[in-house]
Amino acid sequence: MNNRILQQLANTVRGLSIDAIQKANSGHPGLPMGMADVASVLFNKHLKFNPKNPDWFDRDRFVLSGGHGSMLLYSLLHIYGYNLTMDDLKKFRQLHSKTPGHLEVQETEGVETTTGPLGQGIANAVGMALAETMLAARFNQEIELINHFTFSMLGDGDLQEGISHEVCAFAGHNKLGKLIAFYDSNKITIDGDTSLSFTDDTRKRFEAYHWQVLEVDGHNYDEIDQAIKQAKVETEKPSLIICKTIIGYGSPNKQGTHHVHGAPLGDDEVALTKKNLGISEENFYIPKEVYEFAADIAAKGAEVEKNWNNLLLDLQKSNSELYRQFKTIVNNEIGDVNFPYFKEGKIATRKASGEVLSVITSQIPIMVGGSADLTPSNNTRAKGQTSYSPGNRQGNYIHYGIREFGMGAIMNGIALHGGILPYGGTFFVFSDYMRPAVRLSAMMGLRVVYVFTHDSIGLGEDGPTHQPVEHLTSLRAMPNLLVLRPMDANETSVAWQVALKNTNRPSA
Amino acid sequence: MNNRILQQLANTVRGLSIDAIQKANSGHPGLPMGMADVASVLFNKHLKFNPKNPDWFDRDRFVLSGGHGSMLLYSLLHIYGYNLTMDDLKKFRQLHSKTPGHLEVQETEGVETTTGPLGQGIANAVGMALAETMLAARFNQEIELINHFTFSMLGDGDLQEGISHEVCAFAGHNKLGKLIAFYDSNKITIDGDTSLSFTDDTRKRFEAYHWQVLEVDGHNYDEIDQAIKQAKVETEKPSLIICKTIIGYGSPNKQGTHHVHGAPLGDDEVALTKKNLGISEENFYIPKEVYEFAADIAAKGAEVEKNWNNLLLDLQKSNSELYRQFKTIVNNEIGDVNFPYFKEGKIATRKASGEVLSVITSQIPIMVGGSADLTPSNNTRAKGQTSYSPGNRQGNYIHYGIREFGMGAIMNGIALHGGILPYGGTFFVFSDYMRPAVRLSAMMGLRVVYVFTHDSIGLGEDGPTHQPVEHLTSLRAMPNLLVLRPMDANETSVAWQVALKNTNRPSA
Repeated sequence: MNNRILQQLANTVRGLSIDAIQKANSGHPGLPMGMADVASVLFNKHLKFNPKNPDWFDRDRFVLSGGHGSMLLYSLLHIYGYNLTMDDLKKFRQLHSKTPGHLEVQETEGVETTTGPLGQGIANAVGMALAETMLAARFNQEIELINHFTFSMLGDGDLQEGISHEVCAFAGHNKLGKLIAFYDSNKITIDGDTSLSFTDDTRKRFEAYHWQVLEVDGHNYDEIDQAIKQAKVETEKPSLIICKTIIGYGSPNKQGTHHVHGAPLGDDEVALTKKNLGISEENFYIPKEVYEFAADIAAKGAEVEKNWNNLLLDLQKSNSELYRQFKTIVNNEIGDVNFPYFKEGKIATRKASGEVLSVITSQIPIMVGGSADLTPSNNTRAKGQTSYSPGNRQGNYIHYGIREFGMGAIMNGIALHGGILPYGGTFFVFSDYMRPAVRLSAMMGLRVVYVFTHDSIGLGEDGPTHQPVEHLTSLRAMPNLLVLRPMDANETSVAWQVALKNTNRPSA
Repeated sequence: MNNRILQQLANTVRGLSIDAIQKANSGHPGLPMGMADVASVLFNKHLKFNPKNPDWFDRDRFVLSGGHGSMLLYSLLHIYGYNLTMDDLKKFRQLHSKTPGHLEVQETEGVETTTGPLGQGIANAVGMALAETMLAARFNQEIELINHFTFSMLGDGDLQEGISHEVCAFAGHNKLGKLIAFYDSNKITIDGDTSLSFTDDTRKRFEAYHWQVLEVDGHNYDEIDQAIKQAKVETEKPSLIICKTIIGYGSPNKQGTHHVHGAPLGDDEVALTKKNLGISEENFYIPKEVYEFAADIAAKGAEVEKNWNNLLLDLQKSNSELYRQFKTIVNNEIGDVNFPYFKEGKIATRKASGEVLSVITSQIPIMVGGSADLTPSNNTRAKGQTSYSPGNRQGNYIHYGIREFGMGAIMNGIALHGGILPYGGTFFVFSDYMRPAVRLSAMMGLRVVYVFTHDSIGLGEDGPTHQPVEHLTSLRAMPNLLVLRPMDANETSVAWQVALKNTNRPSA
């Protein structure tokens, strides 16, 4: 691989992005232009993927946390031969197109999650990386079935949002060594220069979370490549690669300013940019060479998947029980489950919930519980569950810490990864803290179960800060969220039954 | 001051706390027992306060971010002679008492804010410290009218919550040197040891935010005193004093475990604890010596306020206009305002809002605007406003960064401080990110104005992640929040008028 080809690819992505944004007359050119070089190295030299099977279970995950930079990913998906045509690119930001303004997981093959509300993409990535470790611990017995990286790109906005603290601290604590994040450090936000509001020492901050922190020139292919290699070698710590970039790289008059963040360049500047980058003036132009090269990479990816499928066939012969279990989790199946019936209904619903969980989690191996540090209050821990930790990756109970929002978004990431059905608890009143994650569960149609306890006047002595009032109404107003409010033990049992049967929506 | 008296005070606080919690048969003894020593040093040797006038404008602010540790503060307020009787202490956690389970600003004189939902207390403290710098810059011309510290105590829970990242990064960026936070580092949360989920290097993390970080044994009076002195001297950086403490300090069988966090000790353990601490077995016992000593401190505080009042009288003579302005801000008055009338109503309401602001902010000096990095979209910046920064403390427009939740809770702190009427903007859909802060604005009855823009189908091309759907319903369901949804320019003008007239509730 030589750098000329990488550059050609990166500039093609830049050209496509500014053309699509110009055509839509709205969009965000800054990120795709700034991060095109990093993305080129990643897709060409590192990412494990097969465009013909975007759902391949052991693919590397790639999460663009700044969903507004969607044209970066759309361009690459098209070039590498995903199910995304040139026509689709031309319909950028149009109703019912496969190329909406912000990334949406249901709309586009190859998109791993819906991003846009800042900070949640990296949180989803943490969930995916977490899921990988759990499944690897369980299934990599004779054969290495699960072994993939989770890559994410994040920006100043993601890093300022509080949720980035919650989930990156969680990732460091849990030694998610196969999580690799690229920080697009371009010093620009909507209001202007980041110096207006954001002067964190991000290296130090992530070292405080026990991450490996690397730093590169985000436009230098060798440095980027070297850093990714180094990140892959580090298995005990997640890696943050700080990429010093120029927002809107290539635009002679607008690069490095906030004017290039969220508005089209304008026809004149598009022309000047193409001239500056040395690429064709033609709109939506992709050199034949780029297509050909990408096809080679895609073919190699398909080959890797083929080898993996052969491994799976071997497993079917050598250990049919493990193979069967693996198939079950790949399909997110819960099978036939006996839900408990309570003769004596007069126990608190949160206690009943705990008993239901103890009965069903033993029957449903894909269920993984957790709580935002209210385990004894939420009764989310079932009998027989063990705590997940770096030393016990097979643990099926997660201590999310006092990080409600982080818990919600990590659960979304787990569900997106597949193979695990996450549920997690907190006080009902703190559903407000995680509401933006619940909304994304609902929007993406993920089977995530939120256990909200302590919805009772009996909570009175803790005072109004702990008393839910408007929460039931406001959750019921959220489209596609299934809100169940059981009134006794048996309703609780049925509520769990209904929640688990709804595979395409979250439940509270 | 000798350490014997400090110890006597601290142990008295411990005794009162465990008695009150035992009587209520619920509550959180761990924090009051662990932090009693730190609090004793602070109240006896540093805090500027006058129990007879808890609303004195230039008092130091003290925010106990862990509102569940309320008995710590109630005990001190009683001992120092605030309007809180022994009977009130005995009614801990009872309906309509002045001593609710979590701190509530309206219920108890001397309580600066309502805390309980973790992370928001320190955020309020950041807002108070910010307000102090703004008012000091404006009014300390001839005479130093505004010069006080903001102290806060926070715990592992506060530090895990994402909002702590948003607001502490903001505080460091803005060089809020008079903010001093004590971190109750006791290594215990509800689920058990913090090692289950929380292993951040907090020193490094706060250094990344440009804070001064100090570390003390939280049970060593000299170390605590020395650190507070050092923190007060540092004017360029906020200070974090990491206090290594033992949760439930003094309880021979339960200290240092999560069993002491949120449940009464039990009669036997209460007796053993008192014996261990060498204090009277008698319930709710306060030695005469402690009362007397506290009365001395209180008298000194009253004297300090008296001197300050004399300064104010001097100002009245020397600069009556500044004096008048000062009185206006102390009373949070907006005066008579001319709101604009639009002849042409067909402009976007967010633009109309921007124009209204340009007209009214020049008439209402206490208004201070801001946005969570969407200034050009929210139109929250009025003509003539300048950006607040460490170099321009008189600036009246705040760049909160991409920190919606932080912005909401900082605005609450500003409003609680008094003298400033904060408003801030973001997209309506991101009201979810800041909802827990909006709820506390409403619960505390604070005049905070939330400007939520982009509630329109016209946002379609940005996709569903940016499209509010259920948000209007869910905000309208929140008690005491005034939700105004103007449909044209003149309704927008009236909406601002209504919002500002409602002094005892927030508006959206």
